[in-house]
Amino acid sequence: LIREALNLMNAVDLASLLAELSDKENVIAFRLIEKKKAAEAFAYMDGEQQEMFLKIFTNKEMKEVLDSMYTDDTVDLVEDMPANVVNRVLENLDKETRIRINEILRYPDDSAGSIMTIEYVDLHEDMTVKEALKKIKRVGIYSETIYTCYVIHDRKLLGAVSAKDLLIHQDETLIEELMEKNIISVNTHDDKEKVANLFRKYGLLAIPVVDSEQCIVGIVTIDDAIDVLTDETTEDMTKMAAMNPSDESYFKTSVFTHAKNRVLWLLILMLSATITGTIITKYEAAFQVIPILVSFIPMLMDTGGNCGSQSATLIIRGLAIDEINYTDIFKVMWKEFRVAILVSAALALANGLRIWLMYQDFKLALVIAISLIATVIISKLVGCVLPLVAKKVKLDPAIMAAPLITTLVDTCSICIYFNIATFIFKL
Amino acid sequence: LIREALNLMNAVDLASLLAELSDKENVIAFRLIEKKKAAEAFAYMDGEQQEMFLKIFTNKEMKEVLDSMYTDDTVDLVEDMPANVVNRVLENLDKETRIRINEILRYPDDSAGSIMTIEYVDLHEDMTVKEALKKIKRVGIYSETIYTCYVIHDRKLLGAVSAKDLLIHQDETLIEELMEKNIISVNTHDDKEKVANLFRKYGLLAIPVVDSEQCIVGIVTIDDAIDVLTDETTEDMTKMAAMNPSDESYFKTSVFTHAKNRVLWLLILMLSATITGTIITKYEAAFQVIPILVSFIPMLMDTGGNCGSQSATLIIRGLAIDEINYTDIFKVMWKEFRVAILVSAALALANGLRIWLMYQDFKLALVIAISLIATVIISKLVGCVLPLVAKKVKLDPAIMAAPLITTLVDTCSICIYFNIATFIFKL
Ligand SMILES: [Mg+2]
Ligand SMILES: [Mg+2]
Ligand SMILES: [Mg+2]
Ligand SMILES: [Mg+2]
Ligand SMILES: [Mg+2]
Ligand SMILES: [Mg+2]
Ligand SMILES: [Mg+2]
Ligand SMILES: [Mg+2]
Ligand SMILES: [Mg+2]
Ligand SMILES: [Mg+2]
Ligand SMILES: [Mg+2]
Ligand SMILES: [Mg+2]
Ligand SMILES: [Mg+2]
Repeated sequence: LIREALNLMNAVDLASLLAELSDKENVIAFRLIEKKKAAEAFAYMDGEQQEMFLKIFTNKEMKEVLDSMYTDDTVDLVEDMPANVVNRVLENLDKETRIRINEILRYPDDSAGSIMTIEYVDLHEDMTVKEALKKIKRVGIYSETIYTCYVIHDRKLLGAVSAKDLLIHQDETLIEELMEKNIISVNTHDDKEKVANLFRKYGLLAIPVVDSEQCIVGIVTIDDAIDVLTDETTEDMTKMAAMNPSDESYFKTSVFTHAKNRVLWLLILMLSATITGTIITKYEAAFQVIPILVSFIPMLMDTGGNCGSQSATLIIRGLAIDEINYTDIFKVMWKEFRVAILVSAALALANGLRIWLMYQDFKLALVIAISLIATVIISKLVGCVLPLVAKKVKLDPAIMAAPLITTLVDTCSICIYFNIATFIFKL
Repeated sequence: LIREALNLMNAVDLASLLAELSDKENVIAFRLIEKKKAAEAFAYMDGEQQEMFLKIFTNKEMKEVLDSMYTDDTVDLVEDMPANVVNRVLENLDKETRIRINEILRYPDDSAGSIMTIEYVDLHEDMTVKEALKKIKRVGIYSETIYTCYVIHDRKLLGAVSAKDLLIHQDETLIEELMEKNIISVNTHDDKEKVANLFRKYGLLAIPVVDSEQCIVGIVTIDDAIDVLTDETTEDMTKMAAMNPSDESYFKTSVFTHAKNRVLWLLILMLSATITGTIITKYEAAFQVIPILVSFIPMLMDTGGNCGSQSATLIIRGLAIDEINYTDIFKVMWKEFRVAILVSAALALANGLRIWLMYQDFKLALVIAISLIATVIISKLVGCVLPLVAKKVKLDPAIMAAPLITTLVDTCSICIYFNIATFIFKL
């Protein structure tokens, strides 16, 4: 009964169910599941669980599971496991796969090569639709996707045919007539984020990966591209909040690692903020005479920080999804400048009027209003320029976000504020 | 020659090429392209450009383009166009499609129903693989995807068969034996973000949408799911930076709309920050005696804001990708508390030592160190609790991000700071 229930379950759910069980129950449950599904569930498990299983698998079990896995998942497995487990895994792979895996492991970490798999269907341009379908029937079970097949001549990539086209055309049609020649492909060393963006832009299901001689070496499939998109976004958000990104999920990351990822930026930003503090002390005379001036510091600092982070966020996101480029820098600045004028006018009016009415002090209202306008304009410009410049100098734009900008803008706004105050109150 | 070049281009690139041309060139170029590709490119254009074309299309051209579009894209078109254009579009649709489109338009804005399309392949459980493939050959060209086919009996959804299974199994196999009965489906009124997360979790290419009686009414395809994921992430980031999200891209949004989207939150946050200012004035006596106290305000405020936004960002992202749930609240708080202890100890030590050495004032160093520890712990707890509570009360967790948290935490940290200072310096 349990066996039946387990076999009916989806492999993804199975993997998360097993994660809830104890190691012993795990092994019993795993051996109840039919082999094909068990192997599939194995590919969806997280590193810890995979390691536990690999340690107790017999050689036969290990071979079965590894044989049914696609190369990209085996590569991920090998990357995550400790050396002794890796050795056993490699021993249980056939020689050819072992060589391919070692090749893939050599590609740089964020490259298309590192996320590709090698199980695809290759066709020949002289084949007819009937022959192509026959080949798919033979090799399709071993391929990660059969929905885009690649036409190859002497290892060179000539074109792509979709299974849809094969299925709706007549048996005698030649592949040559059907294939799309103008195909979108990526190089082994292209950034995986670029690859993922191509999936989004063109609505593809798979993208072929070619080497420097235009020979196909693998494909990236859409499920892995979605993982890349998700991970890259999480990475961006993490960096935007002044943290080093973590490889693991929130709960899998230890308290110590969390602290380590967060403390460095906090230290840097904390020490930079003391500069702002030092500047304030230079204007000690001013707030000794008019103590109320101090009370507007938080408001000015926060408004500057918020304005800057609004602009920075829009630009960072625009860069990530390829909507904005470095070449747009003047267009962006002009737009942000006009937005800043409108926004700062509204803020200065609201706060200026409030202060005038509350404190019956027109000069004070004027100081705050002018400081607000200047702060907002500078923050918006700093906020939009920094991410674009970072992109240009090949830094990650995501680090030019709220925390860094807020600290920079604080210094500016304090200087502006006290200078205007000194001038208007003739201190 | 131009015609050939245009016809060789990908429909997506064609759409962006046309966007660069003037209206007149546009029309000439569009009429050079072969009909099928032109219609495809039309679906990829943005609203403005589509409107321009719809206004100059003859009825025959409009019919051709509309016939080749999938319903979900036609729905998007109808949603974007002004009333007079919509009327012409509806007149040129056949009656059945018109009815279906009106049905889809009635689904709530963020629902699965609003992003589904109705062109899918339906099979019968008694069919053989051969019969199924024959049906695909006949209707496949009209379907958005043929890669997942749905087995339907009396309009009820019984199961799903992948084209891969059809292609690798023998002609005589019954669909009943092949079909996956335990299928993942969504309801018409489910949130589209939930739908997109299912694609990610299970690595699917399409998800069937069923009504309350388990009858299939449409499918959502992966390309549209990726669009949803991207848009939802952009929306989250925008909200996290204290802005109202915009429907359009950065450059398509007018300066006035940008300003409108940003000014409301800035006003709210600015006025909340004046509360912090007011609190500072209450401690006027303290900083009249020890003016240096004022200079640490920016450092404390920024550190508190940064710590809070680190925690909030991790939690908001974890909630968005379904890694964290409301029920984890105590687990999260305990984790953040321990992280806060480690982080604050490091910050307090670094800054305390610096101040002790620079100012030769142990009491001052102690005040700052204790204030830092208290501020960090409170910020981290506020940062992690607020998004979870927002989720619980069905608010968007994304609004509980840096700007709001920074403003809340500022008030706390100022109070803590001056209380500790008053106590230690016996003011
Ligand atoms: Mg990998
Ligand atoms: Mg990257
Ligand atoms: Mg894969
Ligand atoms: Mg995967
Ligand atoms: Mg990135
Ligand atoms: Mg700030
Ligand atoms: Mg759509
Ligand atoms: Mg819609
Ligand atoms: Mg939503
Ligand atoms: Mg669609
Ligand atoms: Mg689409
Ligand atoms: Mg959302
Ligand atoms: Mg702050």
